[in-house]
Amino acid sequence: MTTMKILIHGASGRMGRALLRLATADPRFQVVAAVIGRSLPALDALSIPVFGPGQLGNTPNFDVAIDFSQPDGFDAILGHCLARNAALVSGTTGLSAEQQQRLTDAADKIPVLWAANFSIGVAVLQDLLVRASAALQGWDVDIVEAHHSGKKDAPSGTALALGQAVQRGGGKAPHYASLRAGDIVGEHTVQFTGIGERLELSHRAGNRDIFARGALEAAQRLAGRAAGSYQLAELIFR
Amino acid sequence: MTTMKILIHGASGRMGRALLRLATADPRFQVVAAVIGRSLPALDALSIPVFGPGQLGNTPNFDVAIDFSQPDGFDAILGHCLARNAALVSGTTGLSAEQQQRLTDAADKIPVLWAANFSIGVAVLQDLLVRASAALQGWDVDIVEAHHSGKKDAPSGTALALGQAVQRGGGKAPHYASLRAGDIVGEHTVQFTGIGERLELSHRAGNRDIFARGALEAAQRLAGRAAGSYQLAELIFR
Amino acid sequence: MTTMKILIHGASGRMGRALLRLATADPRFQVVAAVIGRSLPALDALSIPVFGPGQLGNTPNFDVAIDFSQPDGFDAILGHCLARNAALVSGTTGLSAEQQQRLTDAADKIPVLWAANFSIGVAVLQDLLVRASAALQGWDVDIVEAHHSGKKDAPSGTALALGQAVQRGGGKAPHYASLRAGDIVGEHTVQFTGIGERLELSHRAGNRDIFARGALEAAQRLAGRAAGSYQLAELIFR
Amino acid sequence: MTTMKILIHGASGRMGRALLRLATADPRFQVVAAVIGRSLPALDALSIPVFGPGQLGNTPNFDVAIDFSQPDGFDAILGHCLARNAALVSGTTGLSAEQQQRLTDAADKIPVLWAANFSIGVAVLQDLLVRASAALQGWDVDIVEAHHSGKKDAPSGTALALGQAVQRGGGKAPHYASLRAGDIVGEHTVQFTGIGERLELSHRAGNRDIFARGALEAAQRLAGRAAGSYQLAELIFR
Repeated sequence: MTTMKILIHGASGRMGRALLRLATADPRFQVVAAVIGRSLPALDALSIPVFGPGQLGNTPNFDVAIDFSQPDGFDAILGHCLARNAALVSGTTGLSAEQQQRLTDAADKIPVLWAANFSIGVAVLQDLLVRASAALQGWDVDIVEAHHSGKKDAPSGTALALGQAVQRGGGKAPHYASLRAGDIVGEHTVQFTGIGERLELSHRAGNRDIFARGALEAAQRLAGRAAGSYQLAELIFR
Repeated sequence: MTTMKILIHGASGRMGRALLRLATADPRFQVVAAVIGRSLPALDALSIPVFGPGQLGNTPNFDVAIDFSQPDGFDAILGHCLARNAALVSGTTGLSAEQQQRLTDAADKIPVLWAANFSIGVAVLQDLLVRASAALQGWDVDIVEAHHSGKKDAPSGTALALGQAVQRGGGKAPHYASLRAGDIVGEHTVQFTGIGERLELSHRAGNRDIFARGALEAAQRLAGRAAGSYQLAELIFR
Repeated sequence: MTTMKILIHGASGRMGRALLRLATADPRFQVVAAVIGRSLPALDALSIPVFGPGQLGNTPNFDVAIDFSQPDGFDAILGHCLARNAALVSGTTGLSAEQQQRLTDAADKIPVLWAANFSIGVAVLQDLLVRASAALQGWDVDIVEAHHSGKKDAPSGTALALGQAVQRGGGKAPHYASLRAGDIVGEHTVQFTGIGERLELSHRAGNRDIFARGALEAAQRLAGRAAGSYQLAELIFR
Repeated sequence: MTTMKILIHGASGRMGRALLRLATADPRFQVVAAVIGRSLPALDALSIPVFGPGQLGNTPNFDVAIDFSQPDGFDAILGHCLARNAALVSGTTGLSAEQQQRLTDAADKIPVLWAANFSIGVAVLQDLLVRASAALQGWDVDIVEAHHSGKKDAPSGTALALGQAVQRGGGKAPHYASLRAGDIVGEHTVQFTGIGERLELSHRAGNRDIFARGALEAAQRLAGRAAGSYQLAELIFR
């Protein structure tokens, strides 16, 4: 097994730190560069080369960059991937229309993947929903989601994405219900109810590491592919 | 085991027919009279004596009357129970304030039980909720209920009753969510969420016979008791 | 909408009676013949032409036969479908190897479908499991099923079929757990557990009518197709 | 609010570290002593006085000791609580019969609580099961538990304790099913199944901090009580 060389952009954020912790413990990966906006003492202990936002030009070469940062650093990491001919996995939110266009343009030259939710289980669920909805036309659809009491928006973005998958498959418009309680990480149940029978599809997230795990999984499957814009689901199922 | 003699008032309604079917198949009971508003051919086959609404005076004696009828027949059956010194189990809804008062007054002389929901499982759940709420003060409370798509009111009366049990125990005001789908008979889940843990209590009704079963169970436990007004839960737990 | 002409073979059995009840209430179908082994008084009321097992030659023409009977009548109904160039939907269990071969041979000339479980929801679940398993390789798989306390075999045939779907997709060998309690009609949950997240897929049957509904749905989609041997899932998804 | 002074015995173990972390962040508590078997660098940062196993005599006074250590240190901390007239909360497993007797004897002089599982939710569930079982005699009982794939024993100790609660209440002997998958922290579902209805009671643990939280909660409710041997449930419900 050849080790995949990864650069982590936004390494001092919550996702970045989880990525560092998981990637350094996983023999499939070698973190060749951590790009950070502020100092991160633990990096010394891990002996990972650290670079400030303005030092991208100095990093070693890498197979794939994983970017969970802010929109204002996005153009730099995208340009760096193009310059080094590396793949880009990004979960940075709040990109402008121009930035999204630049990402689309870059997909002519390098493999790129942007996703709002990197959970493998959610990606699989989304895929199953399209398929189930095609077969269960006319069944009632309810989506119940539960998150910690501090979460403001409802339904969750993931619930809405699941609802879109249902409608893409030809299912009925879903009814949404949102629970906000305790410190629930995230649960989504999609319920198809017919006459006399019911199909329930649920995803339960136990902790937030699953998003970092999913991003690493995506990185591993994206690197080495032909240039193009990929979805998480298609990487998982192929 | 002595057989309990029951009179079924409202025997031609949906609940009445279920009561007849279940009671005649249960060796604990002997149906000595079925009081009906319209003809019910199946009764001939069961050889149960049938009486019209104006013929109450002619029925044999009985231990307990089970009444699922209309408010306009309620005074007659209540008077009949008082006259015969028999217990009364009633699930008739829409009683006037005067009728409720007459029921309260009757409880000085005979044992009576009125309930909105005769499911044994729901009665137990209600009891458990008071107790759990006393211990889980500060935990978030969510009540999710699901019923068939034809049900208009939301939250269900049962969900509201469960919420009252939570608050009676000292729990937080519940958040309600209602699903209306397919032909679901009735499901209620009460979720207590703390930090790092969760307690879920669910009741699932598979068919509507459970209400008739619960009424028969209540009749059996009510007959022979001291005069008074009883709750379903106290009959079950004692 | 043209009405589909159906023949019901085994009309006096439990499935046959459910098929008669549902088909006569569904404007998509016209029951042109009910073939029975013993008398069924309700048929007079429905004015459905009734035929004894030896009277198949006398039935009107039909588009599709639905057969839930005994192995000893299977050859007759299969031959009758071939003679009339009609489709055959069969759920008769206990067919001999020779009978299965005859069914396979018949598929050269007419469309046929044999299935052990006609629930639409279970067929969809089976399909989803193959797909999910392909994506969730390495996740632990548990299948929990619950049925009424009278059910002797465990795990249920449906649970085993779901487990085969998981393995067909490349998933881990499932662990099975079986609950036998009360009068539960049938519930199956397949749980994929990864690190930090879980995907649960459940089917709940509320009553046994779903099998008759599924068979009618299959009949409607099978009639008019090219000769061949079909699976329930492929009829539903196409 | 007066602050409760606690001593943590076994502070360098997994539970001990969780107790230190949660207690120092909770204004209801002041950790006056951490007794450890090995060095724990983080304690310096928290400025908590640290004592080795042989230095118990030197600790300041305290209201309650929380002990999650090894049997060989148990006699020392029990003697220390007696000497200082302080309460003892212990979750140390593997105590000898003599040690259990010494604990019982100590309860004549100080309030003590020993428990195998300090989850508040599990203690509440146990209490509810006794009550529910008394009402649901004759209903089938199934206990399904799920834990991480590394857990060797099955059914879990908690599942067996729940089953004992069911039988204490007069319920049927439970059927157990155990799932071992992924990194599930701990889930227990007790299902009461009657005819046509079902009551499900589930506890889900999201992380192991709940045991430390429960021990702190117990400590707070135990200190200041009369001498005696207490159960977690009675502290919670009173």
